[in-house]
Amino acid sequence: MNTEVCRRFGIEFPLFAFSHCRDVVAAVTNAGGFGVLGAVAYTPDRLEEELGWIDDHVDGRPYGVDVLVPGKIDESAERGGGLGTMLAAVPEEHWTFLAGLFEKYDVPLPDFEKAKGSNARGGPQVTKQGASELIDVSLAHPIGLIASALGTPPPLMVERARAAGVPVAALVGTAEHARRQVAAGADLIVAQGGEAGGHTGEISTMVLVPEIVDTVAPVPVLAAGGIATGRQMAASLALGASGVWCGSVWLTTEEAETPPQVKEKLLAATSRDTIRSRSRTGKPARQLRSAWTDEWEGPASPGALGMPLQMIVAEGAMRQINKIAESGNPGARQLASYFVGQCVGLMNTVKPARQVVYDMVQEFADAVERLNAITEG
Amino acid sequence: MNTEVCRRFGIEFPLFAFSHCRDVVAAVTNAGGFGVLGAVAYTPDRLEEELGWIDDHVDGRPYGVDVLVPGKIDESAERGGGLGTMLAAVPEEHWTFLAGLFEKYDVPLPDFEKAKGSNARGGPQVTKQGASELIDVSLAHPIGLIASALGTPPPLMVERARAAGVPVAALVGTAEHARRQVAAGADLIVAQGGEAGGHTGEISTMVLVPEIVDTVAPVPVLAAGGIATGRQMAASLALGASGVWCGSVWLTTEEAETPPQVKEKLLAATSRDTIRSRSRTGKPARQLRSAWTDEWEGPASPGALGMPLQMIVAEGAMRQINKIAESGNPGARQLASYFVGQCVGLMNTVKPARQVVYDMVQEFADAVERLNAITEG
Repeated sequence: MNTEVCRRFGIEFPLFAFSHCRDVVAAVTNAGGFGVLGAVAYTPDRLEEELGWIDDHVDGRPYGVDVLVPGKIDESAERGGGLGTMLAAVPEEHWTFLAGLFEKYDVPLPDFEKAKGSNARGGPQVTKQGASELIDVSLAHPIGLIASALGTPPPLMVERARAAGVPVAALVGTAEHARRQVAAGADLIVAQGGEAGGHTGEISTMVLVPEIVDTVAPVPVLAAGGIATGRQMAASLALGASGVWCGSVWLTTEEAETPPQVKEKLLAATSRDTIRSRSRTGKPARQLRSAWTDEWEGPASPGALGMPLQMIVAEGAMRQINKIAESGNPGARQLASYFVGQCVGLMNTVKPARQVVYDMVQEFADAVERLNAITEG
Repeated sequence: MNTEVCRRFGIEFPLFAFSHCRDVVAAVTNAGGFGVLGAVAYTPDRLEEELGWIDDHVDGRPYGVDVLVPGKIDESAERGGGLGTMLAAVPEEHWTFLAGLFEKYDVPLPDFEKAKGSNARGGPQVTKQGASELIDVSLAHPIGLIASALGTPPPLMVERARAAGVPVAALVGTAEHARRQVAAGADLIVAQGGEAGGHTGEISTMVLVPEIVDTVAPVPVLAAGGIATGRQMAASLALGASGVWCGSVWLTTEEAETPPQVKEKLLAATSRDTIRSRSRTGKPARQLRSAWTDEWEGPASPGALGMPLQMIVAEGAMRQINKIAESGNPGARQLASYFVGQCVGLMNTVKPARQVVYDMVQEFADAVERLNAITEG
């Protein structure tokens, strides 16, 4: 296909795949798209390992890395002192509420002192210091894109990426943020509608994409949020986008890191089964609605903390829940959740990631043909 | 253009225009689209007058009527006894809160006993009895479509429309509702995303349209919610829709009934300036965010009543507010609001309705050409 981003990024199809799973990243890149590894859950060492693996599997084809550099986080995290300071900033009532949840749903209670440590995975990486380390690791690899998923990319990120000749992408949910990102040096804008999985705003893809295309032209824009099919890819390009950025659709691929029981939940879910909730990271993020989100939004909840404190409380707990759910524990199954967009209702079969790319490209072509038949009629 | 709905409804462009303003309805129909008059705000006599005027101005070209037949409303309204019973069911604290709002924003206090009567406009029409009268008036005119904006069309509506040879359309926000509407006899489904103005669900147009197209095929589907440009019309048809249904975009046309001061607010608003709130009708409806919606969602609020009781409290008050805002009253300007979708951010100039149609059709053609250039590249 012939779009601005195909030329600029040396790809065949303007389809960017965000995934935490290196196999998905490599499969999409090898199929002619552009895989982007979500780095936030990794320590620098682990990220080094993942990127090395990808380098060994894509034969020089382009891929990228996405780090999460929030503009504003809980000050305990930025004050320095690392994990200890952050743990001390979590009020006791949040641990009590969490323990109560495990008890209420009859999920084997973890060792909380130990859990607090393991729960903290993900917390340190969203500080400026943590993100900076991930950026350094990433730029030492032959990546074709570095993306910032939250907030304006820090000047340091833009400078280092520029020096390394790597374009910078930024995910945004409003035209105002898009303007700010371009001013800060972003080369590519990902306009992400509120129907998206993970951190997301409230303006829908259908409205946001044309608005942002007009705002930042001639900077190319990828459409994101709710996109899982070739018809939606065609719709996005009709809106003026230069390509699409998909995250959710890979969660039910053969390669995905998604635990089997969560994959089942995703396959069964309809577009009504997601909710935008602060209960996982402290910022509004769309995910499967479950007993977890209901309880944190419910009357007994102490309320979600800010980012990254809520991640420290929730991420390790959710990993344990999703793991215990595999053993058939019914309470854990009720609580189990996963970041996913409203397009989960369109994800009904398990396919290899490569096949998802090919199917989207074929459906894209069919949609364009249908439009031609309409105008020629 | 050549789509299922163009053939079936005898129109040139598959562009349906929902408006409370007869001038918009006639202008769109005369430009080759399909105007649909929103009837809910009218008494049967007034509706008769409006439809007569349209008949005199469209020279036999097709137009339709939209009535609001909610599936579930406050039982005081259905119990019979009419307006008196409904007024008696409004708790005193709601009138007190309303009076307090007028006072707080220094808006000249209306005569409340009188206001209660005039406020009730709109209330009676959403009962089954009220809707039934509007349906009778409508079917006595040469309409080409009757639409039900909320809930499953009552069997009586479907039977009478069938007998009159008039197709029935139904607005839905979920695939499940679409299935139910088709089972109840709907000939055309309007899949309305959560970004739409007025009564709306939470699933976005980008996700909802392909989901519903697949669910109800071969019944034709119109895409609605957030659509105000030809790019979005092309996107909708790429998603599999057979046409589009637009409401908000007409509010800033030259013909629109919108009060001038509200029109100014709409032109200045961005896509972030709307909110889905129960504060106008008792059911979640998207509108301009204003001091009105903030106060009703705020801590001092007694909470919105159900439909139609909240309409009785709010509709007359909002009419007064919008009217007083015209005189420059600053408090009334803060409170003033209007039902509108997120595409309000794309509505930045005043044009004749006819011109909106022509511009959308031209932009549609441009978008298809752009898609062709992409696939041919």
